[in-house]
Amino acid sequence: MSDRPTARGPSLLTIPDGDNRERKVCPDCGFIAYENPKIVVGSVCCWEERILLCRRAIDPRSGYWTLPAGYLELNESSRAGAEREALEEAGVRIAIEGLLAVYDIPRLSQVQLIFRARLHGPTLAPGPESLEARLFAWDEIPWRDLAFPSVAWALNHHRDVIMSGDPTPRRNPD
Amino acid sequence: MSDRPTARGPSLLTIPDGDNRERKVCPDCGFIAYENPKIVVGSVCCWEERILLCRRAIDPRSGYWTLPAGYLELNESSRAGAEREALEEAGVRIAIEGLLAVYDIPRLSQVQLIFRARLHGPTLAPGPESLEARLFAWDEIPWRDLAFPSVAWALNHHRDVIMSGDPTPRRNPD
Repeated sequence: MSDRPTARGPSLLTIPDGDNRERKVCPDCGFIAYENPKIVVGSVCCWEERILLCRRAIDPRSGYWTLPAGYLELNESSRAGAEREALEEAGVRIAIEGLLAVYDIPRLSQVQLIFRARLHGPTLAPGPESLEARLFAWDEIPWRDLAFPSVAWALNHHRDVIMSGDPTPRRNPD
Repeated sequence: MSDRPTARGPSLLTIPDGDNRERKVCPDCGFIAYENPKIVVGSVCCWEERILLCRRAIDPRSGYWTLPAGYLELNESSRAGAEREALEEAGVRIAIEGLLAVYDIPRLSQVQLIFRARLHGPTLAPGPESLEARLFAWDEIPWRDLAFPSVAWALNHHRDVIMSGDPTPRRNPD
């Protein structure tokens, strides 16, 4: 890109004609970058009674444990996205059993759709975004080394579904 | 914008360094426009036994009936977004009772979160995006003039929740 002028991109915050909110507009070409919240899809995957966690190889929170989860891609259903993330991050194929929770993270402009899933087998093969992938019994879960608060929410909600027998999808804890 | 060069914006489809998917890149400034699926939030709102529908004043499907729904905005929770859409499109304040359904529309790169809600009163005041807003008894619903298939899904799922007493959120019909 060295033969291009310095990239400014959509850097000017202004309300476009006919709109009612500020958007980022490129001062060079007039392109309007509409920004929308993003959808994160992921799953609590079990093999027998153990739960799959992956240790992040990338920032943010590199080195900490998380569920296989990531951004939904274009033209992808939420379940297909959760299956893809499990395959990319832990090298596993999963069978989705139902929706576990919908979490709103408005601070990050994120909605998370987390599913309950079963592994087809205990063999894990962490991908490039994971340092390792492991199956944890409930009393082995590294609570102090979880990457994000919503990982703990999902683990506890999953436990709650099993203990209560009530599969109604959960939302952010109060 | 007449003093600007012709806007090209992110029009070049290419795989950026370190990525594994094609993204739209601006040939003028190098800006990468990451595109992600969008979240639509809306609600089936009832006053007594009647259901709120709005007749669209804008394309697509101008003139057809829909639920109050629209794109979630940045830093907004899904419930706050559904409340905002009901206020913008029908001039009503609503009390959300629960999640009715999560619909995947991968063809449109859309995930819809549709809630069950009650109106605080029967007075409607359609906004600029609605030609009219009306409360329909079940046997008055204009099935042939609904704007989108997912409007019919949500109406039927809402009916099903009431008849069955099972509030488990629904997904796309098979």
